[in-house]
Amino acid sequence: MPAISIPTLRWTGAGVRMIDQTLLPEVCRFIMIRTPEAMWDAIRRLVVRGAPAIGCAAAYGVVLGIRRLRTSADSAAIVREAKKVAAYLATSRPTAVNLFWALDRMTAAAQRSASLPPARLRAALLAEAHAIFEEDKVCCREIGRHGAALVPRTRTPFGILTHCNAGGLATADYGTALAVVYAAVEAGRKVRVFSDETRPLLQGSRLTAWELSRAGVPVTTICDNMAAQVMREGRIGLVVVGADRIAANGDAANKIGTYGVAILARHHRIPFYVAAPTSTFDLTLPTGDRIPIEQREGDEIRRGFGRLTAPRLIRKPDRRRVAAHFRRGA
Amino acid sequence: MPAISIPTLRWTGAGVRMIDQTLLPEVCRFIMIRTPEAMWDAIRRLVVRGAPAIGCAAAYGVVLGIRRLRTSADSAAIVREAKKVAAYLATSRPTAVNLFWALDRMTAAAQRSASLPPARLRAALLAEAHAIFEEDKVCCREIGRHGAALVPRTRTPFGILTHCNAGGLATADYGTALAVVYAAVEAGRKVRVFSDETRPLLQGSRLTAWELSRAGVPVTTICDNMAAQVMREGRIGLVVVGADRIAANGDAANKIGTYGVAILARHHRIPFYVAAPTSTFDLTLPTGDRIPIEQREGDEIRRGFGRLTAPRLIRKPDRRRVAAHFRRGA
Repeated sequence: MPAISIPTLRWTGAGVRMIDQTLLPEVCRFIMIRTPEAMWDAIRRLVVRGAPAIGCAAAYGVVLGIRRLRTSADSAAIVREAKKVAAYLATSRPTAVNLFWALDRMTAAAQRSASLPPARLRAALLAEAHAIFEEDKVCCREIGRHGAALVPRTRTPFGILTHCNAGGLATADYGTALAVVYAAVEAGRKVRVFSDETRPLLQGSRLTAWELSRAGVPVTTICDNMAAQVMREGRIGLVVVGADRIAANGDAANKIGTYGVAILARHHRIPFYVAAPTSTFDLTLPTGDRIPIEQREGDEIRRGFGRLTAPRLIRKPDRRRVAAHFRRGA
Repeated sequence: MPAISIPTLRWTGAGVRMIDQTLLPEVCRFIMIRTPEAMWDAIRRLVVRGAPAIGCAAAYGVVLGIRRLRTSADSAAIVREAKKVAAYLATSRPTAVNLFWALDRMTAAAQRSASLPPARLRAALLAEAHAIFEEDKVCCREIGRHGAALVPRTRTPFGILTHCNAGGLATADYGTALAVVYAAVEAGRKVRVFSDETRPLLQGSRLTAWELSRAGVPVTTICDNMAAQVMREGRIGLVVVGADRIAANGDAANKIGTYGVAILARHHRIPFYVAAPTSTFDLTLPTGDRIPIEQREGDEIRRGFGRLTAPRLIRKPDRRRVAAHFRRGA
């Protein structure tokens, strides 16, 4: 298998270079983000998405804000600006806690280094963003290492179902849920991934299928409503998904549909796992019911593909993401 | 509530006039079908769909074949042609048994009237097609009458979830699953329908939401993967779907996704009903596993909306429709 390396986002001298994920799989185009406003927009529009990747992107977004200050700005001004930019970036999306976790780390780093001279304070903030990024890489590999043990050695491909995209495109390295797949393949396991297409924005077919194909991992895209049938046919040995936020009791919020997949897996007695780094845990919330759930525009459903697919007057659905009330192995 | 009347298909002197359902909800355009070949194509391309409507369309398709014969054709030639056209139309789609049921009725009628003079034989065949159409209307009303009793009188709207389209567009009158809704509304019940969008071809958002809105019935379109969450929130009191074919043991085949919805309904202790006329029963099959399941083109998923939404090399899924192993009230 070729080495997995997807340059989802990278710091360059000039800013953050990232794949515009809204254009995949038709076009793989890179854009350069140079300001906090452009980063806010990129996060909101899902140019960059996936809880860990959003955390990394936001951390670098704070650095971009600092760079705009005059060279003469003193350390107090830099700390003020870091906090202001962090507060602003925190409004881009509500559910993935990695965003707030990364921004908190950036403001804490600013506070901690407030007494340093301006140049060293700036360097400390860039170093903190790099640390967040590098730690996420390590997390991906560790998740892969632990998760690969769940994939048995088989003669025929072992079926793994996933929902949405929790892969290289969603992290600094090779994913959370897909880290399990990639690490299993690296360890010589035969797998076939069944990728739920994941309406409305089709991250499963557009992104997961794209990155797995690119890495040479066999993948079949199914519509979300086909998961139960594929399970019933005995094609799935394991379900693994990522998470946006995990409450203290283990409840996990992830893309809409995850809760349903968990119920279907339980019905068919298929193990269901949530793969996530510790930065996705929010121990301040006792249960998943307290996780803020993002509500997006109804036109993502009504006109998701450039043509009208529901009558204009149809109300937007009330919920778009769910707290999946199933924990590891449920 | 306005009277429900959707002219899905109608016999005119010139042929069968039908709504091109592939264009809804953007455009409501009528086309005239004048030959068995055009009817075969209309059924295959889902210009007309829904098990009962397909039965009616196919019956008229046999009449269209007969009309092409010279006026001098004798009764034996007419019977031969009726059988030939019926055999041809039977190849248009595999799963909905109403198609074969209606075609069998047409060939039996031809056989039965074989000794009549040609003009009366022709009239008998048209009368048989009309009878199939009129009986379906009665079935819809009876299904509605029985089904409406499942909908309680409530102060706030009673939530009903359905999958795909089993409404006026799928029948000669006002539907099977949706007959339950329409009859309940006619009886003064307050309802809100949650309509699964039903990937890949979106019959739920394009057709069900369209016809319910048109009739003034409150409807919310949800992506298929949202059904579990809407159930969990307590918004659904009843699930009702149509069927393509029902085996002797009660197993029902319906649009892909129906099986999953049935599992989710059971998990949330929500009653799940299949609404269908007797013409949808196939007592020659002991169980649902024997129902032939239609496999359609992968590009309906990969390019369903005029743009590429999965990498080109993605395999098509192996199953597109399911036998929903849940019977009435499961």
